Amino acid sequence: METKYIYLFKEGSGKMRELLGGKGANLAEMTNLGMPVPQGFTVTTEACTKYYEDGGKISDDLKEEIFNYVSIMEEITGKKFGDPLNPLLVSVRSGSRASMPGMMDTVLNLGMNKEVAKGLIALTNNPRFVYDSYRRFITMFSDVVMELGKEGFDEILEAMKKRKGAEKDTDLDKDDMQELVKLFKDHYKEKLGKAFPEDPKEQLLDAVRAVFRSWNNPRAISYRRLHDIPGDWGTAVNVQSMVYGNMGDDSGTGVAFTRNPATGEKKLFGEFLTNAQGEDVVAGIRTPEPIDNLKDLMPDVYKQFSEIASKLDTHYKDMQDMEFTIEKGKLYMLQTRNGKRTAQAGLRIAVELFEDGTCTKEEALMKVDSKYLDSLLHPQFDEAELKKAKPVSSGLAASPGAAYGAVCFTAEDAREKAEKGPVLLVRVETSPEDIEGMNAAQGILTARGGMTSHAAVVARGMGKCCVSGCGDLEINYEKKEMKVKGNLVKEGDILSIDGTTGNVYLGKIDTVEATVSGNFQTVMEWADEFRRLKVRANADTPQDAQTAIKFGAEGIGLARTEHMFFSEDRILTMRQMILSKTVEQRQKALDKLLPLQQVDFEEIYKVMEERPVTIRLLDPPLHEFLPQDEQSIKVLAKTMDISVEEIKQTIESLHETNPMMGHRGCRLAVSYPEIATMQARAIARAATKVKKETGLNIKPEIMIPLVGEVKEMKFVKDIVVKAVEEVLKKEDMALEYLVGTMIEIPRAALTADEVAKEAEFFSFGTNDLTQMTFGFSRDDAGKFLGDYYSKKIYESDPFVRVDEKGVGKLVEMGVKLGRQTKKNLKIGVCGEHGGDPGSVEFFHRVGLDYVSCSPFRVPIARLAAAQAAITYKG
Amino acid sequence: METKYIYLFKEGSGKMRELLGGKGANLAEMTNLGMPVPQGFTVTTEACTKYYEDGGKISDDLKEEIFNYVSIMEEITGKKFGDPLNPLLVSVRSGSRASMPGMMDTVLNLGMNKEVAKGLIALTNNPRFVYDSYRRFITMFSDVVMELGKEGFDEILEAMKKRKGAEKDTDLDKDDMQELVKLFKDHYKEKLGKAFPEDPKEQLLDAVRAVFRSWNNPRAISYRRLHDIPGDWGTAVNVQSMVYGNMGDDSGTGVAFTRNPATGEKKLFGEFLTNAQGEDVVAGIRTPEPIDNLKDLMPDVYKQFSEIASKLDTHYKDMQDMEFTIEKGKLYMLQTRNGKRTAQAGLRIAVELFEDGTCTKEEALMKVDSKYLDSLLHPQFDEAELKKAKPVSSGLAASPGAAYGAVCFTAEDAREKAEKGPVLLVRVETSPEDIEGMNAAQGILTARGGMTSHAAVVARGMGKCCVSGCGDLEINYEKKEMKVKGNLVKEGDILSIDGTTGNVYLGKIDTVEATVSGNFQTVMEWADEFRRLKVRANADTPQDAQTAIKFGAEGIGLARTEHMFFSEDRILTMRQMILSKTVEQRQKALDKLLPLQQVDFEEIYKVMEERPVTIRLLDPPLHEFLPQDEQSIKVLAKTMDISVEEIKQTIESLHETNPMMGHRGCRLAVSYPEIATMQARAIARAATKVKKETGLNIKPEIMIPLVGEVKEMKFVKDIVVKAVEEVLKKEDMALEYLVGTMIEIPRAALTADEVAKEAEFFSFGTNDLTQMTFGFSRDDAGKFLGDYYSKKIYESDPFVRVDEKGVGKLVEMGVKLGRQTKKNLKIGVCGEHGGDPGSVEFFHRVGLDYVSCSPFRVPIARLAAAQAAITYKG
Repeated sequence: METKYIYLFKEGSGKMRELLGGKGANLAEMTNLGMPVPQGFTVTTEACTKYYEDGGKISDDLKEEIFNYVSIMEEITGKKFGDPLNPLLVSVRSGSRASMPGMMDTVLNLGMNKEVAKGLIALTNNPRFVYDSYRRFITMFSDVVMELGKEGFDEILEAMKKRKGAEKDTDLDKDDMQELVKLFKDHYKEKLGKAFPEDPKEQLLDAVRAVFRSWNNPRAISYRRLHDIPGDWGTAVNVQSMVYGNMGDDSGTGVAFTRNPATGEKKLFGEFLTNAQGEDVVAGIRTPEPIDNLKDLMPDVYKQFSEIASKLDTHYKDMQDMEFTIEKGKLYMLQTRNGKRTAQAGLRIAVELFEDGTCTKEEALMKVDSKYLDSLLHPQFDEAELKKAKPVSSGLAASPGAAYGAVCFTAEDAREKAEKGPVLLVRVETSPEDIEGMNAAQGILTARGGMTSHAAVVARGMGKCCVSGCGDLEINYEKKEMKVKGNLVKEGDILSIDGTTGNVYLGKIDTVEATVSGNFQTVMEWADEFRRLKVRANADTPQDAQTAIKFGAEGIGLARTEHMFFSEDRILTMRQMILSKTVEQRQKALDKLLPLQQVDFEEIYKVMEERPVTIRLLDPPLHEFLPQDEQSIKVLAKTMDISVEEIKQTIESLHETNPMMGHRGCRLAVSYPEIATMQARAIARAATKVKKETGLNIKPEIMIPLVGEVKEMKFVKDIVVKAVEEVLKKEDMALEYLVGTMIEIPRAALTADEVAKEAEFFSFGTNDLTQMTFGFSRDDAGKFLGDYYSKKIYESDPFVRVDEKGVGKLVEMGVKLGRQTKKNLKIGVCGEHGGDPGSVEFFHRVGLDYVSCSPFRVPIARLAAAQAAITYKG
Repeated sequence: METKYIYLFKEGSGKMRELLGGKGANLAEMTNLGMPVPQGFTVTTEACTKYYEDGGKISDDLKEEIFNYVSIMEEITGKKFGDPLNPLLVSVRSGSRASMPGMMDTVLNLGMNKEVAKGLIALTNNPRFVYDSYRRFITMFSDVVMELGKEGFDEILEAMKKRKGAEKDTDLDKDDMQELVKLFKDHYKEKLGKAFPEDPKEQLLDAVRAVFRSWNNPRAISYRRLHDIPGDWGTAVNVQSMVYGNMGDDSGTGVAFTRNPATGEKKLFGEFLTNAQGEDVVAGIRTPEPIDNLKDLMPDVYKQFSEIASKLDTHYKDMQDMEFTIEKGKLYMLQTRNGKRTAQAGLRIAVELFEDGTCTKEEALMKVDSKYLDSLLHPQFDEAELKKAKPVSSGLAASPGAAYGAVCFTAEDAREKAEKGPVLLVRVETSPEDIEGMNAAQGILTARGGMTSHAAVVARGMGKCCVSGCGDLEINYEKKEMKVKGNLVKEGDILSIDGTTGNVYLGKIDTVEATVSGNFQTVMEWADEFRRLKVRANADTPQDAQTAIKFGAEGIGLARTEHMFFSEDRILTMRQMILSKTVEQRQKALDKLLPLQQVDFEEIYKVMEERPVTIRLLDPPLHEFLPQDEQSIKVLAKTMDISVEEIKQTIESLHETNPMMGHRGCRLAVSYPEIATMQARAIARAATKVKKETGLNIKPEIMIPLVGEVKEMKFVKDIVVKAVEEVLKKEDMALEYLVGTMIEIPRAALTADEVAKEAEFFSFGTNDLTQMTFGFSRDDAGKFLGDYYSKKIYESDPFVRVDEKGVGKLVEMGVKLGRQTKKNLKIGVCGEHGGDPGSVEFFHRVGLDYVSCSPFRVPIARLAAAQAAITYKG
């Protein structure tokens, strides 16, 4: 059977969203509900896919099918396309499964030409209306189909108004309008070198083609990437017979919401204009009136509309965003869709949809977008100010929230200057040494690095906004200034950055503080009722741990122990440890570090109480702890009383070609078992001490990083267990502790059955696992991933959303093989993917026990886990 | 049932090698063949494994079993262990499945003590013999069981001989011997602080324990690693009743081979000593006589022995290395085993074993050790000189062969000085810029880098010896000198290096040229009859290709195109290409590179004729082509007429944190399609040109590196196919060409079913696949792999022998998934593992079509492929 590429509205239904797109499916649904919808047809998304398969051509078959359906429309409406005696005019609009900026917008009044215009005048006896429609058509067609832009037409219109002393468009009369049509056509010909198409069929095919084309324009591609929309979905095209809001004062057009999109209040909200076509409401040429005014102006229409609105709200079980037109007192529905809303409104609407009985609790939960939570938990730019601002550049939206501040180029400057006012830390990339500066800054902006770069990960952990990998920054550290697209920015200059969009602005944009409503709490409680996955947080400090608990974390899934060594009072001892020539020297330094590390753990245990705390042994290569610049090296040499030469030699000898795949993780423990011993002792001593003092049943889970082979796991585990047991024996205490491993090396996943013989738990480190499965360095991938998106090789950043086909396959193997050896093996994930809703769904599906993410993403993970459980229940 | 840990010789058989070790199995086999073997028992390898499981203890059960078997021996021999009236003395020897240096050697005369000695004298009436045996026992027990060393005892003996004016040991009389026993015991007590053990049972258990312990001494571990012997095999212990070659002139001891181990000639070869125990033959204190002399001395014994030898040679179907003792005119066989032999002899023996009907062709082939081929194809040190030399240090045996030469620290110096005499290039590590210097040098020595480092790979490709990763070198480039374990080596000083062992020597050791005999040809032809795997070579130049064909390569499996850009006349254009700011500039540089690249391909095609030639598109990150030092940057800036600053900025902007996982491979083609286009054009133009000129059916196979996703493959393939087809259309010619991919990213293996939709062949790049599966950087792993070996976490270098459990699993998945999509997909391997015999066996097993390796390893791969086919046939 041949594929059917076109559906009449009455042939479709609301369930055919994939085939008809959102707009088409909803037009069909409203038709089925008996609502007044101007009839027409939808060219399916499959036709769009075929258009691309055919090398960007509308096949002859499809052309024929389109004109067949035009004939059917002609039968339904009793009008004829291109017939001056009784002309059918249509609107053409794109409509994909999910609405998407960058897609082709509406073309109204298509089918108009010189002859049709004359015929219409004869029919309506309203030449002003006809020429008004005509000139609108020329503008829209030229703009959205031919990509000529509106500006030229607007100028001609403005010039005409000035000439005629007209204030509003409505002040122009029929002759003016007729002249405008002529001037617009001239402009078209001048710009494009050919006459404006007179043939309605040609107009229609051009418009359909333009919709298909717009599916792959750069803005749509980048939007899809940001929103996980696959490129092969395609868009549908809706062809609908025109109704006219511009036929006089008994006509009009408007948009309205079934609930207030800003607050969520359940009350019709919107605006309309009399004697106007759709675009006028948005264009802001005349000020529209609030929808309530329609009650007095056309009470019957208002009543009919509010009934329809209420019916749609209940039918779709969600707030609807509707477009309507009134033609000579008769109401027509042009569109309905789930409306966009603020985060606050989103939560309120979800809660109230359940409370007013419109939907079940599960359905209500599924309506909550995790992005709402993000914006409720972080400061955002003031919307009014944001509208006026234009970004100077943009990078990766690495950590949500918005901030402004005085630019500082070093962590030290940031720390100092933060006392006097808000600062932004701007770096090529950050390193662990910058932690305190990052903490002092309102936001972090880097020139290099991806979504799991140091800056991004740390900022998310701190709940601080961050834009990373902004390639336009040309930073000159020496001069303490940078260039951004030709603009010079000096230290102290104010910038604003938006970690939710990745945008960077010159100057200050005011921010609005984060606020959490009671609905937030309600939604979180609901989520906890449904989810199966436990949610832990990645937290390295007692402060992080406190935040994590506030947001509902049920444990710590990753406490990195290396961050603890970077504070000023410890780094020196750490460096002494590294520069040790003998085991004895190293032991001496470690003995000094032990009590410090122990206190860290004690504080975290006290905050976490009886919740499990997963502590990862030292992970980064040792060279990360050594100073880089001449000055610091000199200071270190002096303090340690050794030569600068010797330190430089150690730095040189520790240099690695590919540090990511170098001497780090458990490889350090294999070479220097005494480091693992010290850490295990500190973990155990802290646990027994807190247990003794508080009576709390402390539950440390000791995690060995970068394991690739079971013997390696066993070797390090033996060291850890020995150290812990010694402490327990000395203290004469018992302790519930586990020793497990990260699964972040492909080989660990591939041999998980063996690794599980020694490991008491698994935690997938999907950051490193992604790097090694793809062979990408997260620090370097930024340079070429852009090419991969623009060439449609990858549609999403694998560091943001877990790659199910490749990395996911390893995760599934790891789970399956691990549980083959130990049926009830506890398995979690502690990579950044643990806080990404799409990835959380995957982790639910493959049967993990928990996800762990940065504290500020805990609410999102709780929600995503619930949504996954609801989606895949039974 | 309880495990049986001990077998009498007559209970075992030659097939029980795994349980009884080689020595024990052969003693059992000789016993079964009715040969005169002093009886005894073998403690199994499983007992050794249990010893380690029990934490390094001989369990009470095992002790009991040992003494039970001693009782059985007592019954058989009619003597009693520790009984002065009729004492049983035994020898204790280790014996693992494969013989292994570093394992505990022999202890003779165990069971001797003061009382036993007296009893023995009464029995034999030969006090000299008894005390001689006693002092030998003390020495051996102290040395091999107590690890006290022999030196102290030798000094005492020498002092005694001097005092007595004795020239040989045999000149000492019974009193001297008795005194020696006393002096030796004193020495023992002085050194170890306790008396020499008098209790024979204690002696026996100590000896057994020492054998077990010796399984895990560092030398044995490192030997196992080099020879792919698993650590969990364990060693057996053989306890055998003593016979005495030192009972007078009708007694003696000797070793002999059934064929000549140096030449392979089929003729009894060996030597013996009268009135001596086994160790004397080896120790070289007296000069042994050739075995032929035994014919006159003891004709009956000789006849019996030569019959036994012949029988063993036929029985084992291999040259035997035998030990025997004659006690008062009676022959005893103490050991037989397949003898070690020179490479030349190995080939001759294999060929003659088939020719004289002793074994089948398959059996003969299985006897050829691939290492024979290696040493036949590369120069080796003169054995006599080598014996005298002591290595100053050692690194990885990265490329076989031996060389000496004057040390040069830069490639340029090497090139210049090579005209005056042999040079060695010594570098911290090499880079592509060094190629010409490497080519000029006799050998390459590096301080860093593993078995697949640049130096190692390139040297193997050139058939040049290389020692890599020699961590003892402290190179000072500025002063052009280095320190090696405290020795200063200046430019021009002579060093010798052995790429087969990894040893480094100060001064010159003469080398012997490689020679290939007719037997080599015979063995290769046999191999070709049996193997299923095709063998190709990795070859980048016409010279490489010629070598490859000479060694029997059936095609090129990997021609790296990047090496072609490093020659002096091209690097500048390459750099212009990289520094281009626009596509146009880049195109201009590429246009200049195209004809050069085309000529490269033409020459290779001409050599390879109709054999397939796999050409890999540009792989390394672009920064590898840019100059590093100030001077070169200045030159480049001047030549290109741009500022030094600009070049430095480009270098900086191309810098990568982890270049191994950076912007390289097909990622370059995604960012700069014009590079792939140029290369594809050059490949096609060269092919059509040579085809036209010669009429040869040229078969290029274009290989896309570093693919991780099918869309990436398709994107680059489309570029390549378009470029090739354009050339073919223009030339109006057809061409048999394929476009395939390397599988070297874990994700490519995991999604091989998808990748195979676009790829026309797969070639596993197991170097990179190993790096990413393990998360090791091959350039950095050298720093910690040593710890992994010494801690027994890894037993072999995964860059040398493919890791079957992890990397191998990905290879298997890749093959299975790939052929799921394309049933007959051609699959090969072009990593360094393609020339490693153990890995070749694996590749045969998983069903690859071919292996590709450096030209000099082609014969080894052919042999290994045949051996794999024979092993796994049917």
